[in-house]
Amino acid sequence: MLNYDFQNWTRILFGKGYEERVGEEIKPYANKVLLHYGGGSIKESGLYDRVVESLRNAEVEFVELGGVKPNPRLELVYEGIELCKKEEVELILAVGGGSVIDSAKAIAIGVFYEGDVWEVYEQKEPIEKALYVAALLTLPAAGSESSVSSVITNEEKQRKIGFDDFHIRPVLGVINPELFFTLPKNQIANGAADMMSHVFERYFTTTRHTDLTDGLCEATLRTVMKNAPIVYEDPENYDAWAEIGFSGSIAHNDLLGLGREHDWACHGMEHELSALYDVAHGAGLAVLTPNWMEYVYKDNIDIFVQFAVNVMGVRSHRDKDAVVLEGIARLREFFNKLGLPATLSELGVNGDNLELMAKRATGEAYEHEVPLGGLKKLRWIDVFMIYYKSK
Amino acid sequence: MLNYDFQNWTRILFGKGYEERVGEEIKPYANKVLLHYGGGSIKESGLYDRVVESLRNAEVEFVELGGVKPNPRLELVYEGIELCKKEEVELILAVGGGSVIDSAKAIAIGVFYEGDVWEVYEQKEPIEKALYVAALLTLPAAGSESSVSSVITNEEKQRKIGFDDFHIRPVLGVINPELFFTLPKNQIANGAADMMSHVFERYFTTTRHTDLTDGLCEATLRTVMKNAPIVYEDPENYDAWAEIGFSGSIAHNDLLGLGREHDWACHGMEHELSALYDVAHGAGLAVLTPNWMEYVYKDNIDIFVQFAVNVMGVRSHRDKDAVVLEGIARLREFFNKLGLPATLSELGVNGDNLELMAKRATGEAYEHEVPLGGLKKLRWIDVFMIYYKSK
Repeated sequence: MLNYDFQNWTRILFGKGYEERVGEEIKPYANKVLLHYGGGSIKESGLYDRVVESLRNAEVEFVELGGVKPNPRLELVYEGIELCKKEEVELILAVGGGSVIDSAKAIAIGVFYEGDVWEVYEQKEPIEKALYVAALLTLPAAGSESSVSSVITNEEKQRKIGFDDFHIRPVLGVINPELFFTLPKNQIANGAADMMSHVFERYFTTTRHTDLTDGLCEATLRTVMKNAPIVYEDPENYDAWAEIGFSGSIAHNDLLGLGREHDWACHGMEHELSALYDVAHGAGLAVLTPNWMEYVYKDNIDIFVQFAVNVMGVRSHRDKDAVVLEGIARLREFFNKLGLPATLSELGVNGDNLELMAKRATGEAYEHEVPLGGLKKLRWIDVFMIYYKSK
Repeated sequence: MLNYDFQNWTRILFGKGYEERVGEEIKPYANKVLLHYGGGSIKESGLYDRVVESLRNAEVEFVELGGVKPNPRLELVYEGIELCKKEEVELILAVGGGSVIDSAKAIAIGVFYEGDVWEVYEQKEPIEKALYVAALLTLPAAGSESSVSSVITNEEKQRKIGFDDFHIRPVLGVINPELFFTLPKNQIANGAADMMSHVFERYFTTTRHTDLTDGLCEATLRTVMKNAPIVYEDPENYDAWAEIGFSGSIAHNDLLGLGREHDWACHGMEHELSALYDVAHGAGLAVLTPNWMEYVYKDNIDIFVQFAVNVMGVRSHRDKDAVVLEGIARLREFFNKLGLPATLSELGVNGDNLELMAKRATGEAYEHEVPLGGLKKLRWIDVFMIYYKSK
């Protein structure tokens, strides 16, 4: 096990009715907030009104900025920063899924950062300060409600970049599984693929002696794989949604990755798809992950055997390759049952830009090549091969 | 799943060498600390000197109070409170195992509590404030380095009572597995039994739909059961100690108990043994737990079947009783291999006070009977029967 230094201060209010306490719970942090959200769904569902009422009851003033889109855009972040500065906002309340929360985090950084906030994402230097962020989750997937991560898309530069810093870990995450009942099937499936990928990126490691986190990862994966098909068929199943909502948060608060080297190649490869073709993150991950597994598993076969046996329920036997390939086949089948795509072409990605994306993913396009991934270091030609396999 | 409200703010520094950073890491919280510890072992090992040097390097002043014994005593707590008040201490740095940390927490409460701190433990009312506590762990067992719990023994009243409050969750826990290399075998075994019991108390529940936490609990139990025998035979095995150290913390930071009803009957029964006979907590739990399981399992057999299969490796079959009893037999065998006692008489507890302890454990002795446990509500006669079975 590697050394670690970990603190997760996010307070999680989990369960029925907690969205009505948002106002009183953020009052200790702020008298004035930015209410940040996406499209019209929170207004149609009545959630917007309940949040506004909660803020008013707690005497928390607010200004608002809606319009966050999936793969959240830098342009709106700039707008949010100006608004927060002008209005002297003390906390950003994100009401939405990962895109809204990630956008809120970017604004939270930008309010105190002297230069262009995009530099923070490009340069990945630690920041000194950020506004408080709180999240009321409407879509379990990204785990951003208790993570240190934010991923932003710069449309002009066609880049989607993630940035991690403990200052942007939310102070509060509110998760009421009832709010997930109205999600469309594709978002349910994308969310499951995203949270599973967050575990995979930590699970597939070269670090030895990681019994506890191996087991925690496997338990989380099994929980998602048991319950995602249930909510896919029965979207008002509270108990199954509760498991999904809890798992999404655990999958990315970094507990599962403590003391072990991470991978993150699939996320890196997917970000290029989203940047160039605006594909849904979870769908892109569902396409790439099994192909990545097949491409890299021989270098560290034992962790893939363990995955096949402990997560995918493959019976262990001495032909390790067969065990691993059966595990990957079952993963593909699982994604397929959730209606997730299996090929880039299903995502609307043709073969024209594979080399460009591979070179961008590894930095080759920017003349500072950094191999992608921890388990196996992927150079641009490896990434190209995985994209090619995924066509 | 039940609603939950959870925040674990303890920063954990885990791994080699971190004890030397104690001073700089607590400096943001305090310019003056109480250094609280047990017997002479930290002086013999040189740890005391390293901590003192770290405090001096960070310009953190300190006063000290040693002498904490297992089942920490109220008398020393009073002394610590007076010392902290007189010296205007801002943080208590506990260097030791659960007893030292629990004693530190009691002092931390007492500094701000206007009455007798023992009232807090007896009355279990939420407190308003406590001094900061930081912990440098020398014995993985109680999980107190990141828990909200403290257990104190009042010798005069022959009572051992636990108190939980979020104010006493440490701000910092330092866990260096190298510090565990010199622990005697009985402390290794007691520690394993204690952390397993912390999981059991959460795992055995009547709450339905608890997939994720079930899996997290099972992973933690399997990790302890794999690695405790390794360190028992090979006490300088860093990697195995790392798993034990991590597991002990996870077992009691309350993540594993979120959204589910807890039990805590075995802890309640054990506290009476410790109060009257000063037995080691883990040893007492090892005796009582299998007997408690046999006494209660029929009321909620499915969770015990799940335990037998998923944790104890029993092959599932339709004779549920046989599966459960085989699981319990394997648990007894596991404790036995670690040299843990199986009967009260091995603990030096004769049969004279079983009724008294049962009546104290359930409050009957204090004329406010509260059934013990969550899975099955135990009245004094049930507790008596479990003690009797354990003779």
